[in-house]
Amino acid sequence: MLFMKEHVTKQARRAKEASRQLACVSIEVRNTALLAMADALEARQEEILEINAKEVAAAKEKNTRRNMIDRLILTPQRIKGMADGIRQVVTLEDPIGKLDFEVVRPNGLKIRRVRVPFGVIGIIYEARPNVTADAIALCIKSGNACVLRGGSEAVRTNKKIVDIMKDAAAANGIPSTAIEFIGILDRDAVVVMCRLRKLIDVIIPRGGAGLISRVIEHSTVPVIETGTGVCHTFVDKTADQDMAIKICVNAKTSRPSVCNAMETLLIHKDIAEEFLPKVAAALIEKNVELRGDEACRKIFDMNAANDDDWATEYNDLILSVKIVDDVDAAIEHINKYSSEHSDAIITRDADNAAKFEQRIDSAAVYVNTSTRFTDGFEFGFGAEIGISTQKLHARGPMGLEALTTMKYLIDGDGQVRG
Amino acid sequence: MLFMKEHVTKQARRAKEASRQLACVSIEVRNTALLAMADALEARQEEILEINAKEVAAAKEKNTRRNMIDRLILTPQRIKGMADGIRQVVTLEDPIGKLDFEVVRPNGLKIRRVRVPFGVIGIIYEARPNVTADAIALCIKSGNACVLRGGSEAVRTNKKIVDIMKDAAAANGIPSTAIEFIGILDRDAVVVMCRLRKLIDVIIPRGGAGLISRVIEHSTVPVIETGTGVCHTFVDKTADQDMAIKICVNAKTSRPSVCNAMETLLIHKDIAEEFLPKVAAALIEKNVELRGDEACRKIFDMNAANDDDWATEYNDLILSVKIVDDVDAAIEHINKYSSEHSDAIITRDADNAAKFEQRIDSAAVYVNTSTRFTDGFEFGFGAEIGISTQKLHARGPMGLEALTTMKYLIDGDGQVRG
Repeated sequence: MLFMKEHVTKQARRAKEASRQLACVSIEVRNTALLAMADALEARQEEILEINAKEVAAAKEKNTRRNMIDRLILTPQRIKGMADGIRQVVTLEDPIGKLDFEVVRPNGLKIRRVRVPFGVIGIIYEARPNVTADAIALCIKSGNACVLRGGSEAVRTNKKIVDIMKDAAAANGIPSTAIEFIGILDRDAVVVMCRLRKLIDVIIPRGGAGLISRVIEHSTVPVIETGTGVCHTFVDKTADQDMAIKICVNAKTSRPSVCNAMETLLIHKDIAEEFLPKVAAALIEKNVELRGDEACRKIFDMNAANDDDWATEYNDLILSVKIVDDVDAAIEHINKYSSEHSDAIITRDADNAAKFEQRIDSAAVYVNTSTRFTDGFEFGFGAEIGISTQKLHARGPMGLEALTTMKYLIDGDGQVRG
Repeated sequence: MLFMKEHVTKQARRAKEASRQLACVSIEVRNTALLAMADALEARQEEILEINAKEVAAAKEKNTRRNMIDRLILTPQRIKGMADGIRQVVTLEDPIGKLDFEVVRPNGLKIRRVRVPFGVIGIIYEARPNVTADAIALCIKSGNACVLRGGSEAVRTNKKIVDIMKDAAAANGIPSTAIEFIGILDRDAVVVMCRLRKLIDVIIPRGGAGLISRVIEHSTVPVIETGTGVCHTFVDKTADQDMAIKICVNAKTSRPSVCNAMETLLIHKDIAEEFLPKVAAALIEKNVELRGDEACRKIFDMNAANDDDWATEYNDLILSVKIVDDVDAAIEHINKYSSEHSDAIITRDADNAAKFEQRIDSAAVYVNTSTRFTDGFEFGFGAEIGISTQKLHARGPMGLEALTTMKYLIDGDGQVRG
């Protein structure tokens, strides 16, 4: 434990020192280094694939779940995807140096507020090696050093990706210690990382609910919470029902495992008799299991939803369904059970749409479209570090701007305070 | 403990429910209620003064430190100051509803990002009753409910101020439960508060280092750290020395107890022989105790600084002094010991000024002026909730904007994700 703590602390301190240098590196140098990293991943892909094959074999031997193995496997195509992802980050605008506030005070002081890098970003994630390349690219682009901690199943693959990217960085004007990878398997390394206040400036956990709550529980470093999505769609009585069915099917079935998929459908009581059988048929055709409240089950045969269902992120082809009295009841239900991620109303009533937008306390509030759009690329940010479900600093899809902070620069000519 | 926990949780839940209503209350109603609160504090000042006199007497009996008692005492003039502070908040622009990003995507989705209230803000502070009125005013102005926890010495004074403001709120369209005051003296109430994730959206501690580190240690609710200031002034070799002396005296002595006062003076070695005796004489005339490194003590007789001095916020008429080789050495020293609050360079060299501004990793970086200007009013924000020394969400002086978060509103006409 002591050795591990010292080792992790030393890595974070190295990253902090590198971050001082990195904060002065021009965007041209950052971009050139990123392109070199992308090229290096492709040029040295055999090294990655060889190690990855061994880790995949080891995971299979341990009877790891199939979807976990699928996420672990790399192929030449997936490595090309990682490299292209980095090249895409290169094309994005530099988030650093932007002036977002400026004033000259009556005493002549000129005050400017500019966007600057955080310094060191800690990213704790699970076994998907592409996150390694992606996280490094976004951090370097935004002038930040990073300390990465990935899942144990992919530790050697991740380490190889990091080493290749560090080499390319060092050859192109970026200190290699700006990228630190914690290869120690001890789970407590996460806790140590979370307590390195002043060495790590912010921690972003990317993964399941267990990982995220562990980070929040232990961290004294500020955290950006990402992930959990208990998303709702409310079909109002004036909804275009064909549109509503299309949106519900998309929100539930286009990718049920992700956080912006719908988990609960709320239906206005005045249209339930007509709408519920139609939407149920369309969802069942896509193999969705429905779990309804009493009122639903009187109209259409389905399993019963219990109280836990309303708060559950299924990440699966399961949908809870409830009939509500009106838009107010829908808002109340959502604000009670939602994870404040993404919620939608389908309506032709402009007043109800406005009420829903104002009163739903979630990162993204939709009118007449699918919650599946909550995504940095779909929002046009050109990148996504994660989707924040907290209110501090960043909320909703996080682009490069979310990896920056600000600083005030004040120029005077001898002013003193009275 | 169990009763206390339930009680605090119940108060936070009440505030959360009130925050849903408050988010829909117009700025006119919020301002009218604030004016009524200000009037009520003046109209009912006898009630406050009576209770305050008892608490002051009790504190004196307990041999409480004199400066603590001074902060506790209310007078008609101080109550007028509190009321006028609220009226001043009324004049500020509404921070809610501001559109700060808008785009129409190729698929026709219209995405807007608007500033919205956090919901519930927790404020934990020490024994200064004016903070109570101030915090309530800033929270209500920004559409937030609040849960307040003040110091035990002022608990009855604070409770009375809260009750008067709650009455005025309730009579003017603001739910009285939007203002919750934790009157339980048990110190663990702070810990309970800090763990009410999802009921309290953000916690802002205002007080000494002990309070702040306790909050950071225990909180699972996101925290905005405020306060500690180990501020530096570096006098470069090209500095206008008369200006530098004036600035140093101001930064150290105009109000030594506050966080933006200078704690360490760094002097370029080439001017030390000439400048140090002059600045030392000016500071000593103001009763400042100097603590220098070896090089300083060869030039001017003063106490020796030990290694702890460089990291100490004296909050007193004490100054550590060090001679450095150049601007790079100054930057290195500051980034090592600074609390990332406010640091200044005095120079006529534009390159050194630019380098200092870029490389000093602090909330406020000054050129040729005093660190004492780090303040929401001096920056023209018209209010100040505190000075953030963390990088997440808010950095430096926090105005009303720091009490808001954002939400994305997405309008479609049936779009689904491919």
